Amino acid sequence: MERGKTFIISGPSGVGKSTILHKLFERRPNLYFSVSATTRGPREGEVDGKHYHFTSAEDFKRMIGEDAFLEHAEFVGNYYGTPKRYVYEAMERGEDVILDIELQGAIQVHEKMPEAIRVFILPPSLEELERRLVSRGTETAEKIQGRLTRAKVEFESAHTYDYIVINDDVEHAVSELDAIMTAEHCRAADRAVKF
Amino acid sequence: MERGKTFIISGPSGVGKSTILHKLFERRPNLYFSVSATTRGPREGEVDGKHYHFTSAEDFKRMIGEDAFLEHAEFVGNYYGTPKRYVYEAMERGEDVILDIELQGAIQVHEKMPEAIRVFILPPSLEELERRLVSRGTETAEKIQGRLTRAKVEFESAHTYDYIVINDDVEHAVSELDAIMTAEHCRAADRAVKF
Repeated sequence: MERGKTFIISGPSGVGKSTILHKLFERRPNLYFSVSATTRGPREGEVDGKHYHFTSAEDFKRMIGEDAFLEHAEFVGNYYGTPKRYVYEAMERGEDVILDIELQGAIQVHEKMPEAIRVFILPPSLEELERRLVSRGTETAEKIQGRLTRAKVEFESAHTYDYIVINDDVEHAVSELDAIMTAEHCRAADRAVKF
Repeated sequence: MERGKTFIISGPSGVGKSTILHKLFERRPNLYFSVSATTRGPREGEVDGKHYHFTSAEDFKRMIGEDAFLEHAEFVGNYYGTPKRYVYEAMERGEDVILDIELQGAIQVHEKMPEAIRVFILPPSLEELERRLVSRGTETAEKIQGRLTRAKVEFESAHTYDYIVINDDVEHAVSELDAIMTAEHCRAADRAVKF
């Protein structure tokens, strides 16, 4: 059985990442979606091990000391992180792993796991990203401007990734992501060949 | 318009390369199949510019002097080579180029055009390759053994390529090659992004 590979997927808020990943999972049911650990308490309806691995602050800090995270960060008083264990276990089972993380987390993962393949999802244009954020209707104009400013900064980093997928059309973007995963399994350097 | 890319496809005799490439062209009609130049005379039914660019020995030698070939070789008294010109013209038109060449030619192309992507097509096993060569029924047992010995040597070089495609099933192999081409156009380093 071939070992799985880990794919880091980043992209600005509003780019359509969750829709793309949802459709990718329909095409590739044998994917493992990495679940983060967090020290914040579960909200209503959140299931431990599905939405998050809910962890005490004590355990989280112990895990940091044991280098048990691929990446972690503190956000408004709570810790969030990607436990190494589930990622490596999934790859050993032959499953590809999807890490849905932002730029700073991706940099940390790249340091600890340089073989992880990094894909940045971009909108077709900044104007289109703004249009999508506005049409959601869930955020103030000020918050949207903040997201756009942050997106512009992130776009500068897209070229540090291995691949860029442009979400001009969801099916097209999913096909590109799917092709990247297939191609990465054809890499000569680690393709299992027996003669 | 996005510039085309060049893909070098190598693989042992009998691996099913021509069937794979034929099906690839059905999926991607906008591919350019590189036509070799040769100093040997045309055989019956061979069309200049389609099967070969038929070239005089004088012109061929002049072109070698002008560094006009991506690779060239002499074989039983005749010269064969890949003219640079058509390859670059096709890429400028936005077409991907397929170079169907063997190991030694691929090494030469890699030196002159390191950005060309190299794909090696392998049979699922040496036994299966032998079975396919025998079932063709066109060659003597001795000649088949010669091909198998050469294939074994070539397999050692497969890992120097960028990708390995295993032709266990033709449609599967075509899909992998197709995915490799799609993925290579998503490479962050040269994906055209305008913001």
